[in-house]
Amino acid sequence: MTDLSSLALPHVAKLHAYTPGLQPTEPGWVKLNTNECPYPPSPRVADAIRSELAEDGEHLRLYPNPKSTPLRRQIAQIHGLREENILIGNGSDDVLNLLVRVFGGPAAATGFTVPSYSLYPVLVAINDGATSVIEFDRSMRLPVEKIAASGARAFFLTSPNAPTGVAFGNAELEAVLTTFSGVLVVDEAYAPFAKENAVPLLAKHPNLVITRTLSKAHALAGIRVGYALADASVIDLLDRVRDSYNVNRLSQAAASAALADPGYYDAIIGKIIRTRDYWLGEWAGKLGWFTYESQTNFIFTEPKNARGESGPVVAKSLYDFLLCRKILVRAFPNHALTASFLRISVGSDDEMFAVNSAIEAWLKTAP
Amino acid sequence: MTDLSSLALPHVAKLHAYTPGLQPTEPGWVKLNTNECPYPPSPRVADAIRSELAEDGEHLRLYPNPKSTPLRRQIAQIHGLREENILIGNGSDDVLNLLVRVFGGPAAATGFTVPSYSLYPVLVAINDGATSVIEFDRSMRLPVEKIAASGARAFFLTSPNAPTGVAFGNAELEAVLTTFSGVLVVDEAYAPFAKENAVPLLAKHPNLVITRTLSKAHALAGIRVGYALADASVIDLLDRVRDSYNVNRLSQAAASAALADPGYYDAIIGKIIRTRDYWLGEWAGKLGWFTYESQTNFIFTEPKNARGESGPVVAKSLYDFLLCRKILVRAFPNHALTASFLRISVGSDDEMFAVNSAIEAWLKTAP
Repeated sequence: MTDLSSLALPHVAKLHAYTPGLQPTEPGWVKLNTNECPYPPSPRVADAIRSELAEDGEHLRLYPNPKSTPLRRQIAQIHGLREENILIGNGSDDVLNLLVRVFGGPAAATGFTVPSYSLYPVLVAINDGATSVIEFDRSMRLPVEKIAASGARAFFLTSPNAPTGVAFGNAELEAVLTTFSGVLVVDEAYAPFAKENAVPLLAKHPNLVITRTLSKAHALAGIRVGYALADASVIDLLDRVRDSYNVNRLSQAAASAALADPGYYDAIIGKIIRTRDYWLGEWAGKLGWFTYESQTNFIFTEPKNARGESGPVVAKSLYDFLLCRKILVRAFPNHALTASFLRISVGSDDEMFAVNSAIEAWLKTAP
Repeated sequence: MTDLSSLALPHVAKLHAYTPGLQPTEPGWVKLNTNECPYPPSPRVADAIRSELAEDGEHLRLYPNPKSTPLRRQIAQIHGLREENILIGNGSDDVLNLLVRVFGGPAAATGFTVPSYSLYPVLVAINDGATSVIEFDRSMRLPVEKIAASGARAFFLTSPNAPTGVAFGNAELEAVLTTFSGVLVVDEAYAPFAKENAVPLLAKHPNLVITRTLSKAHALAGIRVGYALADASVIDLLDRVRDSYNVNRLSQAAASAALADPGYYDAIIGKIIRTRDYWLGEWAGKLGWFTYESQTNFIFTEPKNARGESGPVVAKSLYDFLLCRKILVRAFPNHALTASFLRISVGSDDEMFAVNSAIEAWLKTAP
C-alpha cells in the first residue's frame, strides 16, 4: 500500500492545523470566546440576501463577480481610496494567507509579535516560511526598533492587539513605517472599537497594508468577508495568488448591505464600547485584577482568586469554572505573557452579568 | 520610495493571474461560456438560506462550523464513505489549491494533461511548483503509460475532460492507479453528466482523490462549494493547510439542501443530457462538424464555415459573430489541439436555438 503522508511535502507532513476557538453547535452557551458581536447585523443584510435570492435562488446558478468589483468600489469610497487599492477576501484570514504567499518563504522571513493573532505562524508554516518573532514584554509597548531590525520581508502587527486589546497609536506605527524596510501589515480586525486607525497613513506609506474584517464589529463572522487596503502594486500581487471566485454571491451582497448602514453599526459599536468600559472598570477597579486598557471588543484580564493570587493555575481554575456553567471564554496557556490571563469577548448586558455572577461565585468557592 | 514588487517572492513577481471566463454583469446575454446550469437550483436551497437567516440574519454574527461537519457527514452518506474521507472547499478550486499545497513544490512535480482545466498550472505556479505536462493527441485517449512515467507526486486529471468533454472509463483510471506511484486527483466537476464515475475505485485505491463541485450540475456556482473524497490520511493533510473557516454559513446550508434533493437534480441533469445529445447530433451530424462525444454539460466542436474550412481563424470568426449577438461561448486559442474548437455550454432550449440560429446566420454570411 502507498504511504500517502510520505508523498506530502516535508513541511506539510510536519504541520499542525490551526485550532480555532470552540464553536459549540448546541444552544445554551454564553459564547464569549471568539469575539463575535453580541448583536445581529444590520437588518439590511438579511434584506439584501433575500433580494439576491429572488424567488427561487435562480441567481445562485451563476458565478459571483470574480473580483467582487462593486464591493471594492464601495469600500474604496468609504476609506477615500481607489478601487485598485482594495482586495476582498473570504474572511480576512484569506487576505492574511495571500499576503504570506506573496511575501513569505523559506528565504524571506515573515515577522510577527508574540502574543498576537496565533494564525500568523500557522499560515507561514503552511508556506514553509522562515519567521522572525519579536516578543513583547509585559508593558505591551510596540517594539519599534526590534521590528525595524527584524529582517522580515513582511511584518504582521495586530492593532489593536489580540489577545491583549492594547492599541498602538499612529505615531508609533509611523515610526515603524519609516524605519522598517519591508511591508508592514496592520491587522485592524478590531479597529472599529479603537480611538484611531491607520488608514490616514496609507497615503504617505506605500509599504503599509491594512486588513479589515466584517466578522467582529459588523456581526458577520458567518459570511466570511474581509479586505485589504494597500498600494495598487500590492493589491496586484495579491490578486495573482487569489482564488478567482473567492467570495460567493450572498456574502458579497451581505457585506455591501452592511457597509451601507454605518448608522446602525455606530450604534452597536458604541454600545459594545460602553459595556466593555463598564466591566473593565468593575474587574480592574473593584476586583483589582490587572487588565490591559482595551480598544477592542474583548477584555484581557488576569484573574485573582479569593486569596489574591494570580497565575496560570488561577486562570485555568476560572476558565474551568465558567466552562462548567456553559460560559465559554478563551485561555492562552502556551505563553508566559498570556497564561495568567483570560480573554472575555464583550457580550450583551445579560451575558456580561452572567459572567460576573459566575466570577463572584468562583471567588466564594475557590480555595 | 520602496519598490514593493521587489519584496514579493521571485516566483510571485513573475506570475500571471488565472483568467476566469467573462462574467458580464449587464442583462441580455446568452451565457454559455462557463458551464453554469441553465436551470435554477432546487427550491429547497432558497428555503434553507431563508431559514438560516431567520428573522434578521442574527445567526450570521456567529462563525460557521469550521470543518463543515454536518455537510461532511451528509456527503459521506451519499457516497457510502465516512466523514473522515470528506473535505469541503470554498468551491472545488479551493480543494484543488489545497491539493497542490500539500503535494506540489519546486522538488515535487505536479502533473496534468494538456488540454485540461487551465487552473492547474496557475495553482502550481502560485506554489512555485515544478510541473510534468503530458500532451494529449487528437484522439484524446488517456495516456496511461505516460502518466505512470510522469514522475509527478500528484497528477490532476479532469474526467470527464474539460474542455473536450471526453470521459475516461474506470478501467482506464484503474490502469493509471495501479501503475502510477503518486496521488491521482480525478477532478469530477462534470461527473453527474457522465455514464460512470470513479467513486467505486476509492475503496481499492488509497492514492485516488476525487474532487466534486456544486457549481455545475447543482446550479450553485454562486455559493462556492466543492469537496474532496479521499483516503482519511489525505483528508488529514488537506485539513492542515485549509483555512479554518473556509465555507460560510449560508453556503453550508445551501449545499446541504441541494444534496438532500436528488430527485430534482436527476430531472434537470436528464434534461441537460438530452439537450446536449440533440445538439451534438445536429452539429456533428447535420453540419458535419468534428465534435468529441461529450459526457459533460458542454459541447466541444470544431466549426466549419460555408466553404467547409475549419481552423483557428474559422473558430475565431464564429466566436466573434456570436459575441456581437450577445452570445458568449469559450475559445481556447492557446493550444493547437483546441484553437480550432469552441466550447458551448449546454443551455436551455431557448438558448440553444438562439446559438443554432446564429450559427445558421454565420454560415450564410461567412466568406
